[in-house]
Amino acid sequence: MDQPSPTACILVVGNEILSGRTKDTNSGWLAERLTKLGIRLREIRTIPDVAETIVAVVNEVRAKYTYVFTSGGIGPTHDDITAECIAKAFGVPWELNLEARAILRSNYASDDDLTPARLRMATLPRGAALIANPVSKAPGFRMENVYTMAGVPRVLQAMFDGIAGELVGGPVLLAHSVVGNVAEGRIADGLAALQARHPDLDVGSYPNVRPDGSFRNAVVLRGPDRARLATVAREVVSLIEGLGGTASDEPPL
Amino acid sequence: MDQPSPTACILVVGNEILSGRTKDTNSGWLAERLTKLGIRLREIRTIPDVAETIVAVVNEVRAKYTYVFTSGGIGPTHDDITAECIAKAFGVPWELNLEARAILRSNYASDDDLTPARLRMATLPRGAALIANPVSKAPGFRMENVYTMAGVPRVLQAMFDGIAGELVGGPVLLAHSVVGNVAEGRIADGLAALQARHPDLDVGSYPNVRPDGSFRNAVVLRGPDRARLATVAREVVSLIEGLGGTASDEPPL
Repeated sequence: MDQPSPTACILVVGNEILSGRTKDTNSGWLAERLTKLGIRLREIRTIPDVAETIVAVVNEVRAKYTYVFTSGGIGPTHDDITAECIAKAFGVPWELNLEARAILRSNYASDDDLTPARLRMATLPRGAALIANPVSKAPGFRMENVYTMAGVPRVLQAMFDGIAGELVGGPVLLAHSVVGNVAEGRIADGLAALQARHPDLDVGSYPNVRPDGSFRNAVVLRGPDRARLATVAREVVSLIEGLGGTASDEPPL
Repeated sequence: MDQPSPTACILVVGNEILSGRTKDTNSGWLAERLTKLGIRLREIRTIPDVAETIVAVVNEVRAKYTYVFTSGGIGPTHDDITAECIAKAFGVPWELNLEARAILRSNYASDDDLTPARLRMATLPRGAALIANPVSKAPGFRMENVYTMAGVPRVLQAMFDGIAGELVGGPVLLAHSVVGNVAEGRIADGLAALQARHPDLDVGSYPNVRPDGSFRNAVVLRGPDRARLATVAREVVSLIEGLGGTASDEPPL
């Protein structure tokens, strides 16, 4: 199934996600965007605001994947340690970035407004390329293949929109779903045979319980060719109908 | 800040999460439950349906954390490979579990209904202790400190409810929030001083953009003692009001 596509990892930095207080929506949003760009997301990792952990994990994953996207920990407060950790991971100084300082300065009336806390948001790894923040100015930044972005969803999304054009994707994998009312246990043998017949596609089966307690099962075919997915989807529909079920065919958008 | 508390890692197994098609809600739900049990969640990792990856990551994290909870990949279809991978990780056979078979059998009219696909759900690592599934019968299982559960949220939640009583927690960390309308950049120095004065508490600062474009900032104090959190929360309120802002104090439930 493996294509020579670029790969990615998302690192979510933040105690508030691990405590359950804040629900991470950034990963799901980025996952959809990366899929549409033809970049295969291979890992999402959420880690605490602990410097040694952030440094070690950044160095592990930046060697392993084409792209790394981090979310969270680049604000002005004492618990915002991501930028400093990225500098450590790359073995470069963490220092005032004059371009970032100028961007922040333009947001305020006078130099006096550039408090030490605010200047923390302009203190970046040496060599960082800035990522624009059209929402609240304080920029994200890129070091080689590591893109460091804010945790606030609206800011992260705006930052990603600004960099998406520079990412290099591979073939886009489309997902064609067939949703049926035949239990997984009855359709499983047929699906395994289908996967074996079509090794170029990725055949997934995802059951769900609806609020009324009834089950539905989504068979998802993934591959780059829309017409081919549609052809194989008809086989899935036949499989479900042959087992006495009904199916709805949902082509990719 | 570190307490001698039990730690945990959540492993989410599934291509459908990495593609962005399905949004992971299990991690956030489990994170809240673990926090309330006094178990410190230290990592959430989402990985693909790739056997070598699952085996390697399970072995990495089960050595590192008190508890590991996995979600997904234990159904009857060809892409459900978690149980087989857990067996490999523990170096034990993956074989029919008679207790699990009996549970599945009770769900059907005759032995003929126990198709090879359904029996896959009763094929477990040797030595596995079953985790009851009151929703759809097919059990999860525990191997030492690794709890393997379903990916369907309703099933995962029911499984976790069944095992929560056997988990050993430490002191429960409560989260006391003070939400204010002073920007992080202005409150940051005061918060750093507050954190320095109260090293026994964990002081976090989480900005958010509201739909109307305005900002709010939540200062979250974490610690085991409700009264002490309330005392320090009053300092946060004073800090915000001293900067000309307004604050609402939200004690833990």
